[in-house]
Amino acid sequence: MLGNTFGRMFRVTACGESYGDALVAILDGTPAGLAIDDAYIQKELDARRPGTSPLDSPRKETDQVHIFAGVRDGVTTGAPLGMIIYNVDRQDIHVKQYFDVKDLIRPGHAEYTYNVKYGKNADWCGAGRASGRETCMRVAAGAVAKKILAKYGIEVLGYVKECAGVRAKDLTFDEVKANYRSNMINCPDEEAAAKMIEKVLEIKAKGDTAGGVVEVIATGVPAGLGEPVFDKINATIAHGMMSIGSVRGVEFGEGFNSTRLTGSECNDIPYVKDGKVAFRTNRAGGVEGGITNGEDIVVRVAVKPTATISIDQDTVDLSKMENTKLAAITRRDPTITARAVAVVEAMLRIAILDHLMMWKGYDAIQDVDHSEIGL
Amino acid sequence: MLGNTFGRMFRVTACGESYGDALVAILDGTPAGLAIDDAYIQKELDARRPGTSPLDSPRKETDQVHIFAGVRDGVTTGAPLGMIIYNVDRQDIHVKQYFDVKDLIRPGHAEYTYNVKYGKNADWCGAGRASGRETCMRVAAGAVAKKILAKYGIEVLGYVKECAGVRAKDLTFDEVKANYRSNMINCPDEEAAAKMIEKVLEIKAKGDTAGGVVEVIATGVPAGLGEPVFDKINATIAHGMMSIGSVRGVEFGEGFNSTRLTGSECNDIPYVKDGKVAFRTNRAGGVEGGITNGEDIVVRVAVKPTATISIDQDTVDLSKMENTKLAAITRRDPTITARAVAVVEAMLRIAILDHLMMWKGYDAIQDVDHSEIGL
Amino acid sequence: MLGNTFGRMFRVTACGESYGDALVAILDGTPAGLAIDDAYIQKELDARRPGTSPLDSPRKETDQVHIFAGVRDGVTTGAPLGMIIYNVDRQDIHVKQYFDVKDLIRPGHAEYTYNVKYGKNADWCGAGRASGRETCMRVAAGAVAKKILAKYGIEVLGYVKECAGVRAKDLTFDEVKANYRSNMINCPDEEAAAKMIEKVLEIKAKGDTAGGVVEVIATGVPAGLGEPVFDKINATIAHGMMSIGSVRGVEFGEGFNSTRLTGSECNDIPYVKDGKVAFRTNRAGGVEGGITNGEDIVVRVAVKPTATISIDQDTVDLSKMENTKLAAITRRDPTITARAVAVVEAMLRIAILDHLMMWKGYDAIQDVDHSEIGL
Amino acid sequence: MLGNTFGRMFRVTACGESYGDALVAILDGTPAGLAIDDAYIQKELDARRPGTSPLDSPRKETDQVHIFAGVRDGVTTGAPLGMIIYNVDRQDIHVKQYFDVKDLIRPGHAEYTYNVKYGKNADWCGAGRASGRETCMRVAAGAVAKKILAKYGIEVLGYVKECAGVRAKDLTFDEVKANYRSNMINCPDEEAAAKMIEKVLEIKAKGDTAGGVVEVIATGVPAGLGEPVFDKINATIAHGMMSIGSVRGVEFGEGFNSTRLTGSECNDIPYVKDGKVAFRTNRAGGVEGGITNGEDIVVRVAVKPTATISIDQDTVDLSKMENTKLAAITRRDPTITARAVAVVEAMLRIAILDHLMMWKGYDAIQDVDHSEIGL
Repeated sequence: MLGNTFGRMFRVTACGESYGDALVAILDGTPAGLAIDDAYIQKELDARRPGTSPLDSPRKETDQVHIFAGVRDGVTTGAPLGMIIYNVDRQDIHVKQYFDVKDLIRPGHAEYTYNVKYGKNADWCGAGRASGRETCMRVAAGAVAKKILAKYGIEVLGYVKECAGVRAKDLTFDEVKANYRSNMINCPDEEAAAKMIEKVLEIKAKGDTAGGVVEVIATGVPAGLGEPVFDKINATIAHGMMSIGSVRGVEFGEGFNSTRLTGSECNDIPYVKDGKVAFRTNRAGGVEGGITNGEDIVVRVAVKPTATISIDQDTVDLSKMENTKLAAITRRDPTITARAVAVVEAMLRIAILDHLMMWKGYDAIQDVDHSEIGL
Repeated sequence: MLGNTFGRMFRVTACGESYGDALVAILDGTPAGLAIDDAYIQKELDARRPGTSPLDSPRKETDQVHIFAGVRDGVTTGAPLGMIIYNVDRQDIHVKQYFDVKDLIRPGHAEYTYNVKYGKNADWCGAGRASGRETCMRVAAGAVAKKILAKYGIEVLGYVKECAGVRAKDLTFDEVKANYRSNMINCPDEEAAAKMIEKVLEIKAKGDTAGGVVEVIATGVPAGLGEPVFDKINATIAHGMMSIGSVRGVEFGEGFNSTRLTGSECNDIPYVKDGKVAFRTNRAGGVEGGITNGEDIVVRVAVKPTATISIDQDTVDLSKMENTKLAAITRRDPTITARAVAVVEAMLRIAILDHLMMWKGYDAIQDVDHSEIGL
Repeated sequence: MLGNTFGRMFRVTACGESYGDALVAILDGTPAGLAIDDAYIQKELDARRPGTSPLDSPRKETDQVHIFAGVRDGVTTGAPLGMIIYNVDRQDIHVKQYFDVKDLIRPGHAEYTYNVKYGKNADWCGAGRASGRETCMRVAAGAVAKKILAKYGIEVLGYVKECAGVRAKDLTFDEVKANYRSNMINCPDEEAAAKMIEKVLEIKAKGDTAGGVVEVIATGVPAGLGEPVFDKINATIAHGMMSIGSVRGVEFGEGFNSTRLTGSECNDIPYVKDGKVAFRTNRAGGVEGGITNGEDIVVRVAVKPTATISIDQDTVDLSKMENTKLAAITRRDPTITARAVAVVEAMLRIAILDHLMMWKGYDAIQDVDHSEIGL
Repeated sequence: MLGNTFGRMFRVTACGESYGDALVAILDGTPAGLAIDDAYIQKELDARRPGTSPLDSPRKETDQVHIFAGVRDGVTTGAPLGMIIYNVDRQDIHVKQYFDVKDLIRPGHAEYTYNVKYGKNADWCGAGRASGRETCMRVAAGAVAKKILAKYGIEVLGYVKECAGVRAKDLTFDEVKANYRSNMINCPDEEAAAKMIEKVLEIKAKGDTAGGVVEVIATGVPAGLGEPVFDKINATIAHGMMSIGSVRGVEFGEGFNSTRLTGSECNDIPYVKDGKVAFRTNRAGGVEGGITNGEDIVVRVAVKPTATISIDQDTVDLSKMENTKLAAITRRDPTITARAVAVVEAMLRIAILDHLMMWKGYDAIQDVDHSEIGL
């Protein structure tokens, strides 16, 4: 496969499989002088870790991260950061379970496409590189980005906007922050959260799984990030989001709903506020012409229901090219929507940081006085 | 700006503004031996051209394309294809109209963000590089990709799925093809099309504009295209789609709706058909684990209502940093959804071709027998 | 072909053949606010233009450049600069000459490799994309880079260090500047220049051609440019230089000669000068560890003798796969070394600017006080 | 820093410092189905390892490599290969030695440029990321490339062409292979080798160090690899070579010497041999117009004398910005030329493989019959 790097200036390159020895990320573009250690990255990773609630898979991965390159005495040296997480929960019983069905396509998973592409050497254990385990390294990389963005006053937070058909009310960044990660479904609207959890557990009881929508908001983003034409910041963000395993859709601001508005209903009207331009509404989701406009970036991603279900399914045995059955699987995530929040946040942080660096590199060779319009 | 190239192997690099002299695209990765001429590209461009229906802007651009490099005697030489379109409708009256409002933010347009980024030298005429005119070169590049894909039996067609709140019924690729571009709204469901047109003209009469959803389908796509992890084919496609000016959302297959299904409802069940794997449903939209699975790729993009409206709007004068009014503008597209179809098709073609080349380059160094599973 | 873009931040993408309609370059990364016009670019191009001295090919190309995108009212807008040069000297007589030998490999040229790669559709006229004509666009792009670098006090000048075996004495940047382009061989050491010219004309009289060495010096380059490990600035520069048609070697500072020195003879010894670090010598050519050290960047490139000679040569007819003869060709450059200077300068400017932008983008996210060591 | 990835299709991304915990390489583009294990990579690494002869540094690094990702049951899965080497020789005594001189510029090393760029957080221990230790991962990556190239019949071998001013006679690929790595200086010309060793030991005895020239030859390379204009294969190779720490020059075929030949002396004359095109000579070094011509690729790189010497040197203390002395250092490589051979071979393998994949990806979309000219 060819696509294991993301970014143009802040570049994340990762490897590692679900049941391989370890996962590693290399962060090209790590600045020097950043205080960072294992414990800091660990804290971010813990938000993505499975096995912590009845909504998650019971797999017991401690996801202990270690920075093995790029840091001396707790401070980055400018060399690329190297981070490693060893896979520890690789019990024979689970490996055997995967081995037993290694020729079967697990519906909703990538066995077939990986077999098409990589032949019978495609990793049959735990989905290999197609497993959600790779998202550990996205979160670890995002944690580094988070710390750098904080110096610019940029904050990114996500939450579950909708799960199992239950939708939370509209929330501002401050409202999300005020009640962040307050429950197992990661939805700050407690009333909706309770209903979501109830609905997911009900679906779980039937052996089935649920999907949902994650909303992520970036605040404090300066106007000016994004590179027209093909590397609009929303294009980069959409790329990053859609590269997350179970994501089936991405939208900004009013998103698909904006198609049902008229121009006069959809346009964000600017006005002067404290000597700077602000907008009365944020239907664009913080991006106009592919460049941030100073409003919050608001993105929503559609997370499909977990493909692994505890119900028998028809399928194909690829070794015999015969129709067969895949038995119900018990070890699974009733929904990954809550866990996906950390991954979605990470991708937004990485994308924003990448654009920030591009913008600063470009602007350095301009003769442009940004203060003319209050910046 | 830094983002004027799209693709890794089949690379489109473009330049040119709305009211500049010309638009150019350079296609790195053009193969040798392809019969191609101006007339062929022109035909594709004509589908995007404004001024052809009451739903479009009355701007009279003939969009005459000329291939100036990469072709000898009507056949490509392997050198990068160079294509140029001169802007011809640059009448003083229109330039003056833009000049008169050059310091005003046109709501829903990119003036503010371009001014933030490029200062007062940002092109004030006709939205400059942020104008939809740049999409000409996407369509021209897509026309080349189309011809190459045809050799592999890959076909891509799009249509207006929804406009002004009116949604067409579900259509297969063959149904789309059978009634392709049969009406001014580019919707093969004639009943829905009639309602869409009626609704758009109604909105137009009020000086307002409409948005919509474009669906695009690729058929004949072999299983195996897409590069995990970060360059999943759906990620590349989402990148390309979201880079189109007025797009606010992208989804594959069931998309956002899949979040309301359970796993058992959402999983596509495989079975053996003629010695190969097929799927009972295509809720994934043709992509599993970031790699095509042999089913049609189905993508929908949300196109916001045209920002330019014939109604007065509040806005800001950037030269004075004062609130002011932008007067109603008469020359505009009541909806660009129909014209966007050609652009959306082009981006899908380019993305698929790019991945096809990556896949072939990668597979050439593998020892994998793809016939084992009937391929 | 796939390689028509150079650079990561300041990106030059070009197309066009020797006997096609036109050559175009698109400059992604052009800053806004730069005063630039056709006349300025033209001046740089004129230094590369053939037909101006008895040492050059008599082809009469005026190389009139026109900026068709990215500029409004003489100032860049931030949009990518588009530049076009039409080929005007495409007389039937010359086209016919090429047509007559279209199946013959011209020794030292790229016919064979292009035929291998692109088949019989490879452009047979005037070497197509493999012609030195493409270097026009390098020079045009380099002219833009030159203007941007000037704002940072960076100057780049080249000259012919050696031609036809005659070597100029060692020259500082100031000495090169003081006598820049003062003669037809572009060598500021007038005594050596006279000998070079004499020697080349002597070789020309025999129907043969000469090669040489171009040295190019960049002064005013701040310490800190270059990205370890794989994108050291000398690596980027070597890439750029070796991509020029007739170049067979590249070296920095003492270059190949440094291999014959001992460590104590080769190390550049630092000392404090006006509160900053300077070096007693510059054997490294301004780069240590892949990063500029504040001394002049000194690069030398080996330019092979022109392949086209006025002497009969043995060769192969590719259409018959038979040995045959290629008749002497009269229209040729006795040496391209003098004309190559402008191209070599351009590539160095582009490479430095690209690294400057990378450095500024990266440094913006660091907390590093560069004044600590006097910067 | 930003430059830790090399390649477009076969992409090596690496991290790790001289005295950090470990070095890691991630190989994006690793094919599935390749039998590979730690022992195979180890064998290649052992050729680069220090401490094995009196010509090397006495540092005792065992360079034990472990593949931690991308392989299952001894065969690659298509996932990116992850390889790790732990640094084991990090004794306090050596760390202290580095600590004691951490503010001094070691002449010929990268302290100053790294301090300029990364401030005082730049790694002061053992040259950090600027250390030659990073080349381990180049060799490990090159070992993978070697195995893939072997399937195409492509072989790459290097040797010391010149050291301490002693030059070996001209050698063909077969001659190099016949006497490969037969002595501690890695020069198959035993007579020259003996003189080189004698000369280096003589220089070593004076506390000084020697440089040299490495020649590397690739045989069995098919005609057709290389991407005009900017990504000519010689440009990519030059980039890769110049990115190696101590390299000061690169040349192909006759290289700098070709500048002293005339066109008739320098042109390689083609002829028909066994129904295919061959060349009477190989002055071009296997590349014409940036594309391989089927002859051996012949590259030479200039390796400067080791910067660390056992002689006192003047230098600057960066913490005080004062002139001072750096005491003689005993632990050093009298010459790294012999050890550089493995690194130079690796970079050539990686570059060729990268171009092979590009070529195959591109050619797959062409309608070109390469058999027409005997291929």
